[in-house]
Amino acid sequence: AAPLSGDDPSILDRLNSGEVVIGDGGFVFALEKRGYVKAGPWTPEAAVEHPEAVRQLHREFLRAGSNVMQTFTFYASDDKLENRGNYVAEKISGRKVNEAACDIAREVAGEGDALVAGGVSQTPSYLSCKSESEVKTIFRKQLEVFTSKNVDFLIAEYFEHVEEAQWAVQVLKESGKPVAATLCIGPTGDLNGVSPGDCAVKLGKAGADIVGVNCHFDPMTCLKTVKLMKEGLEAAKMKVHLMIQPLAYHTPDCGHQGFIDLPEFPFALEPRVLSRWDVHKYAREAYNLGVRYIGGCCGFEPYHIRAIAEELAPERGFLPQASEKHGSWGSGLDMHTKPWVRARARKEYWEKLSPASGRPFCPSLSHPDSWGVTKGHADLLQQKEATSEEQLKQLFTKQKEKCCV
Amino acid sequence: AAPLSGDDPSILDRLNSGEVVIGDGGFVFALEKRGYVKAGPWTPEAAVEHPEAVRQLHREFLRAGSNVMQTFTFYASDDKLENRGNYVAEKISGRKVNEAACDIAREVAGEGDALVAGGVSQTPSYLSCKSESEVKTIFRKQLEVFTSKNVDFLIAEYFEHVEEAQWAVQVLKESGKPVAATLCIGPTGDLNGVSPGDCAVKLGKAGADIVGVNCHFDPMTCLKTVKLMKEGLEAAKMKVHLMIQPLAYHTPDCGHQGFIDLPEFPFALEPRVLSRWDVHKYAREAYNLGVRYIGGCCGFEPYHIRAIAEELAPERGFLPQASEKHGSWGSGLDMHTKPWVRARARKEYWEKLSPASGRPFCPSLSHPDSWGVTKGHADLLQQKEATSEEQLKQLFTKQKEKCCV
Amino acid sequence: AAPLSGDDPSILDRLNSGEVVIGDGGFVFALEKRGYVKAGPWTPEAAVEHPEAVRQLHREFLRAGSNVMQTFTFYASDDKLENRGNYVAEKISGRKVNEAACDIAREVAGEGDALVAGGVSQTPSYLSCKSESEVKTIFRKQLEVFTSKNVDFLIAEYFEHVEEAQWAVQVLKESGKPVAATLCIGPTGDLNGVSPGDCAVKLGKAGADIVGVNCHFDPMTCLKTVKLMKEGLEAAKMKVHLMIQPLAYHTPDCGHQGFIDLPEFPFALEPRVLSRWDVHKYAREAYNLGVRYIGGCCGFEPYHIRAIAEELAPERGFLPQASEKHGSWGSGLDMHTKPWVRARARKEYWEKLSPASGRPFCPSLSHPDSWGVTKGHADLLQQKEATSEEQLKQLFTKQKEKCCV
Amino acid sequence: AAPLSGDDPSILDRLNSGEVVIGDGGFVFALEKRGYVKAGPWTPEAAVEHPEAVRQLHREFLRAGSNVMQTFTFYASDDKLENRGNYVAEKISGRKVNEAACDIAREVAGEGDALVAGGVSQTPSYLSCKSESEVKTIFRKQLEVFTSKNVDFLIAEYFEHVEEAQWAVQVLKESGKPVAATLCIGPTGDLNGVSPGDCAVKLGKAGADIVGVNCHFDPMTCLKTVKLMKEGLEAAKMKVHLMIQPLAYHTPDCGHQGFIDLPEFPFALEPRVLSRWDVHKYAREAYNLGVRYIGGCCGFEPYHIRAIAEELAPERGFLPQASEKHGSWGSGLDMHTKPWVRARARKEYWEKLSPASGRPFCPSLSHPDSWGVTKGHADLLQQKEATSEEQLKQLFTKQKEKCCV
Repeated sequence: AAPLSGDDPSILDRLNSGEVVIGDGGFVFALEKRGYVKAGPWTPEAAVEHPEAVRQLHREFLRAGSNVMQTFTFYASDDKLENRGNYVAEKISGRKVNEAACDIAREVAGEGDALVAGGVSQTPSYLSCKSESEVKTIFRKQLEVFTSKNVDFLIAEYFEHVEEAQWAVQVLKESGKPVAATLCIGPTGDLNGVSPGDCAVKLGKAGADIVGVNCHFDPMTCLKTVKLMKEGLEAAKMKVHLMIQPLAYHTPDCGHQGFIDLPEFPFALEPRVLSRWDVHKYAREAYNLGVRYIGGCCGFEPYHIRAIAEELAPERGFLPQASEKHGSWGSGLDMHTKPWVRARARKEYWEKLSPASGRPFCPSLSHPDSWGVTKGHADLLQQKEATSEEQLKQLFTKQKEKCCV
Repeated sequence: AAPLSGDDPSILDRLNSGEVVIGDGGFVFALEKRGYVKAGPWTPEAAVEHPEAVRQLHREFLRAGSNVMQTFTFYASDDKLENRGNYVAEKISGRKVNEAACDIAREVAGEGDALVAGGVSQTPSYLSCKSESEVKTIFRKQLEVFTSKNVDFLIAEYFEHVEEAQWAVQVLKESGKPVAATLCIGPTGDLNGVSPGDCAVKLGKAGADIVGVNCHFDPMTCLKTVKLMKEGLEAAKMKVHLMIQPLAYHTPDCGHQGFIDLPEFPFALEPRVLSRWDVHKYAREAYNLGVRYIGGCCGFEPYHIRAIAEELAPERGFLPQASEKHGSWGSGLDMHTKPWVRARARKEYWEKLSPASGRPFCPSLSHPDSWGVTKGHADLLQQKEATSEEQLKQLFTKQKEKCCV
Repeated sequence: AAPLSGDDPSILDRLNSGEVVIGDGGFVFALEKRGYVKAGPWTPEAAVEHPEAVRQLHREFLRAGSNVMQTFTFYASDDKLENRGNYVAEKISGRKVNEAACDIAREVAGEGDALVAGGVSQTPSYLSCKSESEVKTIFRKQLEVFTSKNVDFLIAEYFEHVEEAQWAVQVLKESGKPVAATLCIGPTGDLNGVSPGDCAVKLGKAGADIVGVNCHFDPMTCLKTVKLMKEGLEAAKMKVHLMIQPLAYHTPDCGHQGFIDLPEFPFALEPRVLSRWDVHKYAREAYNLGVRYIGGCCGFEPYHIRAIAEELAPERGFLPQASEKHGSWGSGLDMHTKPWVRARARKEYWEKLSPASGRPFCPSLSHPDSWGVTKGHADLLQQKEATSEEQLKQLFTKQKEKCCV
Repeated sequence: AAPLSGDDPSILDRLNSGEVVIGDGGFVFALEKRGYVKAGPWTPEAAVEHPEAVRQLHREFLRAGSNVMQTFTFYASDDKLENRGNYVAEKISGRKVNEAACDIAREVAGEGDALVAGGVSQTPSYLSCKSESEVKTIFRKQLEVFTSKNVDFLIAEYFEHVEEAQWAVQVLKESGKPVAATLCIGPTGDLNGVSPGDCAVKLGKAGADIVGVNCHFDPMTCLKTVKLMKEGLEAAKMKVHLMIQPLAYHTPDCGHQGFIDLPEFPFALEPRVLSRWDVHKYAREAYNLGVRYIGGCCGFEPYHIRAIAEELAPERGFLPQASEKHGSWGSGLDMHTKPWVRARARKEYWEKLSPASGRPFCPSLSHPDSWGVTKGHADLLQQKEATSEEQLKQLFTKQKEKCCV
């Protein structure tokens, strides 16, 4: 790996110079499987309770090629931590969680070529229709920690409504640090029906230096959304860097709210997990689209991040450390005693393979739960194609109403 | 978790008293995904190179409920370490790997209610037709370390030929410690055509206190094999404890050599990974069959082990530590804002779900590569049912011949 | 069934009065399975060679509820019959085939409530870039037979290029009889890149009284295409009746040239065949879209046509004759000895069932052959969405060029 | 096709000389789709009501290569015809149905190289525990017609209990004509738990000249059952000809009662239909097993029968008439304009193809309904393997009890 020396280049230096920046993977899902995060609340108190587990995961992503250590502060706003039962506010304050997460990220970043990014995400306050100033106060509390810990840049991520993301960006920009903003939306736009192109422009205008998407959809769907964002930015003649951090789950069948509505969320997603070869395709497509900040979200394990770094090694000129323990395109199998296993030690084999699920009683696609049991295939297709403005507004108005009750 | 105090009961004390002993999961596959083990050689030099990564995985299994810390010494015999290029014998001796693995296992075992088991596995020496005394010498070198580090008991695991496993058991018994022995075979028996029932009897006669299977097949297939072993032992009126540590991959379609021959091995097995609910079923069936040492092998992550501990919590009387971060049967979702996600916070939902793969271009089953491209479904079925002794002998003779060239 | 008496209403009388007209099913595919049509050439010489087989199929469609007996003259233009090796022009002239087909259709139509429609389809002459007048001469030869046999109306069907269909309509209109025109196109338009909306307008302007689609795509895809046609006609303020005759095969995965490019075409389409319940959904959706001429194409067997008639029985006020031998929504099972089979004698059961294929080694979707072996999922999605005019023109130009070499 | 001349050889002459005899396909399922048979009762009154439809189907099978025209008398015993509501006994007597079926079969058989076989099948009388003499009286009534119409030989088919089949054989032998007997059982034996080998011996001892299986299971499963029958006969040193007429549906997932218990029976079996290439494999395997009377049952359409005749053409020395309209192994596609479709005009393509279902929301296998909703995969596997005599007896006793209430 290329070591950092002297004055480290900032995230914007790197992106401006055309460098590929590799993000990290999905902390809450990985740590849930390791026993440190509870599915449901998904809150990051493990930074205080089990720093060694969080540190180890950071190290694995660093070793896999990540250039960014995101502080493990997803859902670490005070309102979120308080309104979930399993977090005892008296014992572990939100401040403590955010501080611990910054310390761990900085410690591991120092072991390699990585920047530290402080992260905020959507808040219960916004969803329960609190005012702009109330919501901004929430973000500002986290920002205070990020500033005092001197993170390298900031990320506002996992927003379903561009409006809240704009507020977050405005707060984060108060720090003077570079700001990235990613929405968890698909090609149909945010939950108020704002198109990806318009979302990107709004975020850019709010001050984001980097915009894109994270979570909720698989790589192919996220690529489509980012493409629409790119087109929107080009039409508006705005220069903003692009960023993508999709799920590591195949979700061709989910609706506009993403994988949460799939019946398998969150405890039976296993058959949908991307192979490393799926990640190779994704990394190449993202690169070809002009995206230079390429990472992952829920489901991305260290080996998925390594696959990004390996696919883009020709462009970057080096392999990540963890490739010491990985033969490119399966070449580690070239000594196997069985000839048919040795025959798998090549790119073409893995690129073409359609892996079996071993589950003959399971289908390949699901109907999202949100569409109800009486809805059929026709509805599915129609909803997916409800792209006229009127149709989308109708769909989203109803949801917004529900959400504010 | 129930703390240990005073004189810890041995593995046999525990099993003799009817206690459930929960094994650990799959180190080589988990650490491959984390970036510390190379697929192909699958050797455990990480115990020396990255002890923190090995230690963390031990901790996660302990926290998930494992009562046994197996030393990370799979494929750590000298002949194996030497014949794979990626291991520099000069720099890290086999002795050092085995010692480091013992130290890490003991350290973590001391943090909870767990025993340390030293493990040996099949050797290249046997497969290349070395003599009994040569093979036994190989095992004895590892045993010396285990004895000097005073592990609690010993496991001979991952043997495709019962003969080699018998030799391993005979060596391990020289230590005077309890010995477990598991073969990586399916219901059709070992690669010399010895039936599971006969294998179990042979291992018992060689001195094994616990016998069973590990790796190569999914839980349902392994349960069938252990059932046959049990019947063999009963017919021979032998009292030996049963043990099972299957794959965490669905493999209904593999042949008698197991998942290695599936085209997805080892880099595209994702769609086959067991959900935690699949593990619940497995743990219950294993318990009902009378198996009391229940763990996992390749693919088993900490959350899979936790699922064993949660399923058998009524019998054991306690939950594992990691259940602090897991709502039983999805109950962590009971606060979700969407009613259809809240509706998933119950056992019946997850038990009945047939999870979609999100991969509509992939089949549910594969034809094992070993059967060649011209073989069809009929052959598949016939091979699976080639259970007469003659047929099996013919199949296996040919393989044995090949193997010794 | 409602008998016809006195002066039979014409096809336009029926449609103008809002009546549902049920088309027939797929002759060439049904007769191929019965042994009278050769896959590849797909020519209809059976009308002369085995009139009893053609007559029987007509009768079955009539009995199932068809209101139109299409003459079995698909691909019966002289240029088609000649350029296929298996048709001996000396022995059976094109005139003879067309005449025989008219006679059979008229004979069976007289046995019930059905009109006779003379049909023409796309010609090799057009595909090999013959001139408008040459192509029209081809159509005119068939029209002469239809006029002399006094069919009730005319159908120009199975055209991949709207231009050729326009020429066909212009010729057929010379007869003074009502003319229907259907293209075998999908939502991306004809093979010259003309959108469905524009196609419909062009056909209407050429004189077609009824426009729509037939063949090449499944019902859900065809419904989308007809919807686009309807929108085009509305935008152009044209009043033309709508017609739909889709495949009886599920083809969500095919490209813009339809099922021919699927690897299963034409000899392994079995797993894609619609159940009668799929047809119920289709018939209802077609009706809701405002289509009143509803039939089928390749794959539609008599029981599929009956399902249209049964679904729309409430609107039409009567059931077809063949419903004497069919319990609505499975009610014929209500006397079954097994309770779980009796439990299937209800609509909800069949509506909700996701039928298994019994083929665990097969995927659910295919990549169309035309996209080559190196093309992946991403291309698939992109090609499907290549809806901008430029993209489509590029795609189609290349094909047109090839076709005229 | 080879014409018959002079004194036609009997079914036994043919089989004794080693000739392959090709059976016909499934009348009730084919005629249900054509609109002449009602699913549920499945009775054959169409022989009287619509003789032209029955005649046409016979002709298609003859043309496809069938050497046997089975009278369309399935479920035509008086007790069956009476206890189903949709049959008006006053208007059409059982005698009339049986006579009409004989006349049609004889008429078509005379048009080619085929024998006429009178057929009886299981009776409600047996299932409701009537006495041997009562049941035999039922069979005798049908036999009277067959004798007076001078059929060439007799078939007792579709029996779930070998006992009833023995009674049928004993009655049919009174005629002095050759008798074939086929059970609709799988490898686990009849519904009283009698193994296939024992069933075959019992039928041979009752006087059957030909024994085997028909219906209820797919070809691969039926082949296994016939193999067991063959082994039973060999062990008993009995010389009896073998016969097989399986379903044309893939049913790897059904239980011991066959496809009736699959949730798709009978109205959503489409995705399970065999392709012609599946039939090629079946015909070859049946031939290799030594079976010489090879046909089909429910689901077998004329093109499936043609595939048997084409696969075995090298052995038989001729193709069936219908092959005039079929290019061997897809060769009819060799003139197609698209190169990738032309590339399908070869055996290897179709032999290797795993056809997609086009149904991404459907699984590949079902759980038979009879096993209840709470039964999982483990039960499935266990039931399939419940081959010990005790286990089977337990399973079957319960069913027998239910059946006689």
